[in-house]
Amino acid sequence: MANREIPYKIYLSENEIPKTWYNVRADMKTKPAPLLNPGTGKPATAEELTPVFCKELVDQELNNDDREIEIPEEIYNFYKMYRPAPLVRAYCLEEKLQTPAHIYYKFEGNNTSGSHKLNSAIAQAYYAKKEGLKGVTTETGAGQWGTALSMACSYFNLDCKVYMVKVSYEQKPFRREVMRTYGANVTPSPSDTTQIGRKILAEHPGTTGSLGCAISEAVEAAVTQPGYRYVLGSVLNQVLLHQSIIGLEAKTALDKYGVKPDVIIGCAGGGSNLGGLIAPFMGEKLRGEADYEFIAVEPASCPSFTRGVYAYDFADTGKVCPLAKMYTLGSDFIPSPNHAGGLRYHGMSPILSQLYDDGMLKAVSVKQTEVFDAAETFARVEGILPAPESSHAIKVAIDEALKCKETGEEKNILFGLTGTGYFDLTAYEAYNNGTMTDYIPTDETLAEFRSHLPKIG
Amino acid sequence: MANREIPYKIYLSENEIPKTWYNVRADMKTKPAPLLNPGTGKPATAEELTPVFCKELVDQELNNDDREIEIPEEIYNFYKMYRPAPLVRAYCLEEKLQTPAHIYYKFEGNNTSGSHKLNSAIAQAYYAKKEGLKGVTTETGAGQWGTALSMACSYFNLDCKVYMVKVSYEQKPFRREVMRTYGANVTPSPSDTTQIGRKILAEHPGTTGSLGCAISEAVEAAVTQPGYRYVLGSVLNQVLLHQSIIGLEAKTALDKYGVKPDVIIGCAGGGSNLGGLIAPFMGEKLRGEADYEFIAVEPASCPSFTRGVYAYDFADTGKVCPLAKMYTLGSDFIPSPNHAGGLRYHGMSPILSQLYDDGMLKAVSVKQTEVFDAAETFARVEGILPAPESSHAIKVAIDEALKCKETGEEKNILFGLTGTGYFDLTAYEAYNNGTMTDYIPTDETLAEFRSHLPKIG
Repeated sequence: MANREIPYKIYLSENEIPKTWYNVRADMKTKPAPLLNPGTGKPATAEELTPVFCKELVDQELNNDDREIEIPEEIYNFYKMYRPAPLVRAYCLEEKLQTPAHIYYKFEGNNTSGSHKLNSAIAQAYYAKKEGLKGVTTETGAGQWGTALSMACSYFNLDCKVYMVKVSYEQKPFRREVMRTYGANVTPSPSDTTQIGRKILAEHPGTTGSLGCAISEAVEAAVTQPGYRYVLGSVLNQVLLHQSIIGLEAKTALDKYGVKPDVIIGCAGGGSNLGGLIAPFMGEKLRGEADYEFIAVEPASCPSFTRGVYAYDFADTGKVCPLAKMYTLGSDFIPSPNHAGGLRYHGMSPILSQLYDDGMLKAVSVKQTEVFDAAETFARVEGILPAPESSHAIKVAIDEALKCKETGEEKNILFGLTGTGYFDLTAYEAYNNGTMTDYIPTDETLAEFRSHLPKIG
Repeated sequence: MANREIPYKIYLSENEIPKTWYNVRADMKTKPAPLLNPGTGKPATAEELTPVFCKELVDQELNNDDREIEIPEEIYNFYKMYRPAPLVRAYCLEEKLQTPAHIYYKFEGNNTSGSHKLNSAIAQAYYAKKEGLKGVTTETGAGQWGTALSMACSYFNLDCKVYMVKVSYEQKPFRREVMRTYGANVTPSPSDTTQIGRKILAEHPGTTGSLGCAISEAVEAAVTQPGYRYVLGSVLNQVLLHQSIIGLEAKTALDKYGVKPDVIIGCAGGGSNLGGLIAPFMGEKLRGEADYEFIAVEPASCPSFTRGVYAYDFADTGKVCPLAKMYTLGSDFIPSPNHAGGLRYHGMSPILSQLYDDGMLKAVSVKQTEVFDAAETFARVEGILPAPESSHAIKVAIDEALKCKETGEEKNILFGLTGTGYFDLTAYEAYNNGTMTDYIPTDETLAEFRSHLPKIG
């Protein structure tokens, strides 16, 4: 390999970390639909949301107007511990594929939580601390969000109660121990510690859990204990706001070398990474300043964008949260337990849902085994063992690069490498042993869950 | 926290990665004692070493004269994938300890092998490939070295056979899967695939293995198969040479901000990290250009420096390797299976042994539970879950910083954070559950193993 004009890793300096988050809603002509109070069917007010969320986070949730929101100094100092995250030119992957495309990835895994989730966890913990709360509750699926929140709470000395989707709790005992090392209390969900948990266990005794169900338990735990609030690692507008730091840094780094991405690819479960990665680029597209192709990649086993409907639905299985308008499979949908890692959420960020409905981004779904094929290829040439979630984006980035090989186009491809797979080795083991399977829900299954959607909106 | 004059993380640019390794032997007045052929009792010649090691690595092993050795471009390009490694100012740890000391750590864990081991693995794989070999064999203890070598072999398309110390193989199934994902063949040691393995199993049926024993198996596998050579992740002079990149980068980064470390601390098992970290600083001390205090930290359960003897000994339990003069507990010494992670080796790098004997560095031993206390403190404030090995250095860095708190000294403390603990959660679980124990061998035990030392040199 020869020397390269652009470094393998573009690191910004610490003072190039953005000082403000970017709120893409300010540039959206059609704003995302408001959350609805399920009792009244009317938009949820700040007062109605305050028992669940911290006040400043409610403000961020409802703020459709301010384009830039300042990052408080305490959060900024924490960001400095693991940011700026590198933007990597995937020279070795390009060589392996023999593609004329230039592949870049924004790597968010260089921190102990192992993913981008820390970007929002630290913000949410900070506002909880500032409000004088005792602690927070949350759910976690693959464990990335729970780990991130444990780290953030430990930093601000807040109590942290994590409801962990049972299948992950069992497949990932090490995740649990990281959270415990950071002082968190971890409960497998559904559990008998909440009313809703007991109800779900009675109805589905063998269930391996789902994010939606763990959310319900965490919300119940927050609203029934004084001094606690609920925090969520994806889906919400506030989370996409905090995650905009991914895209802002990526854009700064690319601008430095005069590189304009043609295609931007991110995995999509609830949308936190994808929404953050594309935010400033989408802003330019919305303002008519530039054009980009955006691709959301979701698992074929949980295809909210590609096979869901755009409708008001509960964010949680227990139906205690406000209703959100989003692409959804129905809040009763419980993905196959064979599916590795995150991206198991039945719905999708309302912001991304609106943008998708407006034709501003595309979506594709991919099968689990082809995702791990891509993960292995990537790991061997780029030296990073990717998280299964991130590997969805890798798969489509490779597909796009191979298309360029056919057409001869020198496209710039940017994808989000959201995290590392160090806690996903059970899934890698199944892949290595050839026992990994694919699951694709039938049309009948999806229609059944869709029929349970609330009749609102 | 206020803004800081020195960044939290000092990243060098890719062209600041050193172009040459530094060979500390060139500056040592008393050279490390030569390896001896156990049959003849005479210094091992290049010819005698070539059946075991690649030719260029034999040259590096025996080269006591050249101060700088060029890093081949292929290796340099691989280094660019994960280097330069950041030098971190531990502002949050300083605040937690309320110390006037300034604490820096060189973090080598930002790569999938999770440690500094990759620095030498890629070099050894490169020379094996260049020599036209089919593959390499090795041993691994905690799994860091095996993972690193798997990654390196995958990059150069070499076959990789890893003998993994049985206790680690059982405690760390995930390490095994990472290695398999990179295409390596992993066998728990002792195994029945080698003569020496069968012999050890017959004599000690319940053994949990040791590094020395795994080395013997890997060497046997290499010399009995055409096209294979043995590679080793620590102890050897060539390894310390490759690892000098740690110290060279750390020094470049500190020089940039005009910081001179007063104390430099590294954990020591076989000495690869410590030797690499201190190399250029030790060079200055040896040449009389500057003074530094160096501290080697070893586990109380395997105290080669602090309770061993300086003598010729076998590098491996099977007694098939050349004899090395080093601080040793005796090649039959098998550390307590309760001890977490690496640093389980009975001997110590001949280079470091000579320097220690010359009074150029100090050594201390620390107990496992206090190491994990330090690890937890560090993880919670600095956001990185450290490897148990690295945490030995953290423990002593904290001790030094607390001494400064008493004396009011503003010392600059530099330590090596060799890696992350993501694959050591079984040990963290024991610590979290309060079931972790300490083991300190008695004087009688040590005397017994010492009595088996070969009567040479």
